[in-house]
Amino acid sequence: MRAIRIGLLGCGVVGQGILRLLREHAGSLERRLGAPIEVRRVVAKTEGKARSYVAPELLSYDPETVLGDPEIDVVVEVIGGLDPAGRYVRTALERGKSVVTANKFLLAEEGHALFELAEERGADLYFEAAVCGGIPVIRVLREALVADSVVAVRGIVNGTSNYILSRMQSEQIDYGVALAAAQEAGYAEADPTLDVNGGDATHKLTILATLAFGAKLLPSHVTTEGIEHITAIDMKMAERFGYVIKLLATARSLPVGMLDLRVHPALVPKTSVLASIHGALNAVYLEGAMLGPSLLSGYGAGAMPTAMSVVSDLVDVGRNILRDSRGRVPQRTVPSGMLLRREVQPAGMHVSPYYLRFAVMDRPNVIAKIASVLGAFDIAIHQMIQEARASGPKAPVHVVVLTHPTRDDALRSALREIQMLSGIVEPPRAIRIETAA
Amino acid sequence: MRAIRIGLLGCGVVGQGILRLLREHAGSLERRLGAPIEVRRVVAKTEGKARSYVAPELLSYDPETVLGDPEIDVVVEVIGGLDPAGRYVRTALERGKSVVTANKFLLAEEGHALFELAEERGADLYFEAAVCGGIPVIRVLREALVADSVVAVRGIVNGTSNYILSRMQSEQIDYGVALAAAQEAGYAEADPTLDVNGGDATHKLTILATLAFGAKLLPSHVTTEGIEHITAIDMKMAERFGYVIKLLATARSLPVGMLDLRVHPALVPKTSVLASIHGALNAVYLEGAMLGPSLLSGYGAGAMPTAMSVVSDLVDVGRNILRDSRGRVPQRTVPSGMLLRREVQPAGMHVSPYYLRFAVMDRPNVIAKIASVLGAFDIAIHQMIQEARASGPKAPVHVVVLTHPTRDDALRSALREIQMLSGIVEPPRAIRIETAA
Repeated sequence: MRAIRIGLLGCGVVGQGILRLLREHAGSLERRLGAPIEVRRVVAKTEGKARSYVAPELLSYDPETVLGDPEIDVVVEVIGGLDPAGRYVRTALERGKSVVTANKFLLAEEGHALFELAEERGADLYFEAAVCGGIPVIRVLREALVADSVVAVRGIVNGTSNYILSRMQSEQIDYGVALAAAQEAGYAEADPTLDVNGGDATHKLTILATLAFGAKLLPSHVTTEGIEHITAIDMKMAERFGYVIKLLATARSLPVGMLDLRVHPALVPKTSVLASIHGALNAVYLEGAMLGPSLLSGYGAGAMPTAMSVVSDLVDVGRNILRDSRGRVPQRTVPSGMLLRREVQPAGMHVSPYYLRFAVMDRPNVIAKIASVLGAFDIAIHQMIQEARASGPKAPVHVVVLTHPTRDDALRSALREIQMLSGIVEPPRAIRIETAA
Repeated sequence: MRAIRIGLLGCGVVGQGILRLLREHAGSLERRLGAPIEVRRVVAKTEGKARSYVAPELLSYDPETVLGDPEIDVVVEVIGGLDPAGRYVRTALERGKSVVTANKFLLAEEGHALFELAEERGADLYFEAAVCGGIPVIRVLREALVADSVVAVRGIVNGTSNYILSRMQSEQIDYGVALAAAQEAGYAEADPTLDVNGGDATHKLTILATLAFGAKLLPSHVTTEGIEHITAIDMKMAERFGYVIKLLATARSLPVGMLDLRVHPALVPKTSVLASIHGALNAVYLEGAMLGPSLLSGYGAGAMPTAMSVVSDLVDVGRNILRDSRGRVPQRTVPSGMLLRREVQPAGMHVSPYYLRFAVMDRPNVIAKIASVLGAFDIAIHQMIQEARASGPKAPVHVVVLTHPTRDDALRSALREIQMLSGIVEPPRAIRIETAA
């Protein structure tokens, strides 16, 4: 039987992980696929770097050696980012090559056009590795949940921010210290922006929600907040009320038919399963109308989990090539013409209980004034704690309020008024409480 | 495009659940599959019963109306048990029809011959619903983990026994009371034997291990113990040491190359994720050499989760029919000729720490004698508690010992000797402690 011939674009840690798996598991992969997988070309960016698992004669620095090779069946893209990776993927699909990619940024921002191009050219575009590395959540959404309607996807999908929050929690350190520790341990990149500001999680949630709801969704539809403003005090106060703080990604189909799409830090009960997802682990709840909640958890990033998902996609795409059944599974769960139109709920309409923290100078009446502003906006107080002053009389004290469920827009308005009160010395902090986690 | 025509054998709650899904999700299933699924015939056992979702003109009581209909592409078997279900499945495959089944008993005991028959006739035999109802563990093992080697599968795979143990734990009731409660709540059948004696979990583990290791395994290879002897006292004592008791199914590839296959109650740490799997939930850890541990959890039984998995298989099998790509994925992860031979470790060689409970009459020296027998077999004591007597002086007291890791055969020999000591009034209880859970 003929080999499945691939070209690899990108030869960083994930690319080398893929080459390692293809070499070390060659026999078992051939038994399971029914044909060998042959690496025809590996395209790297920088000349002269030391790389493992790459046969020198296969190495190239020109993507056209892959894109222009008519013998290559499948292009594997592990460069990342929008450009030039997007151009390469587009060219490959235009030329009828199937593509396996780990590029969540590209798929979240430009995926819809790429999926349509793939359909048009009868090519496959597979992307398990783009969301939660080694967790087969794409496969489960595309294939296993085919007979149920998904009502919610909810989880921890960014390992870097979860690592930072886990360290803040276990060591009672502040955000900056934990970020530095994450960078030192290799869990955060030199530029961690997209990981800590929620952008990466938003990309992943966009892809998951697109599949879950068979709808044309974009990152701009997602309400996004990062973890940069979480402090050691918030961690400690959350714990005192029985919660931990996690960066949650949530996509829900609301009873009214709209979608609720959010990425933000949230207080989740200490006893919940999501609270027990520590460090670089990821976890995703899929909730089906019939099935109820089910959970997938495991390592969401790292070279080998990501490489593993790429290779499992390669086997799938290879099976489609050998059986001449490309396009066997609709890329977005339904074919392009049949995507549903789903309205997205504006952020201000979201209702949830809130954790609020105010740094106040210890003046008479400040607390009464806070309570009165909250009351004026119909925000009911569920619990309240005023910390004893830790330092001298010039230091602010922290007042923490847990609210009953409140609309976002009302809460934001109230916080703006409270911020202008005399005695409030920092912008108030507001973190949603997610009891359904 | 042509319809996928199915015949349904079995019209109990799962069968009716399948018909319900096929009716309620007809539009979305057709969009995703690319063809409608048409139910041609439903075969029930008992005439005159009330059934939902069955069009009366489709109902039959003769399996030959399905097996003998050349128009039917796929036979769905949800009768259960070895006979006659096994005969029907065999006949369907012999006639080149693909089969979707939820029958773990049949697959565990006679699966290998059926898989080989399916391969020979170019038919598909799909069985997601046979293991852990709504959890897509078969799909993940067959397809997602294709690029890794599985080193362990471990989990809670029987919802009935987990429900019973959960109630024993939360309400401090004895096994018999919890079993009756489970039956009343519909979580245990009138004859719960296979659920509580570990047989059902052993069937599931056999199927999982067959896929995980690409080996020809049978239920008789699995060391099996049930939960019938667990008492409220064991639950309470386990908790005192920081554990809960769960029925665990474990399949491990040992460093020496042998497989370790076991189903038995075990003490797992209260803080572990498996300890948080309550009631009818199931959870399976899959541990890959490259991927590390990943967890799948959700409802493992019940009409709708099981029906959902059957229908997702139907869509897969339907895609294979439409694309003429039957046999696309090897049923046991590798084709028949390439199954590995794996030796199974004899039960006596297994090493683990143990929880031991002895009911002793409060005579001088009994405890010293127990300790001395354990010592004679090189069984080291890690912790020991003697309960204060609860009732009158004629009642036995419970002595609980946690051992260091011990070989099973040495432990069994020691227990036989201890049982013969005067003052030991009940057979000693021994439960493994699983710290890796």
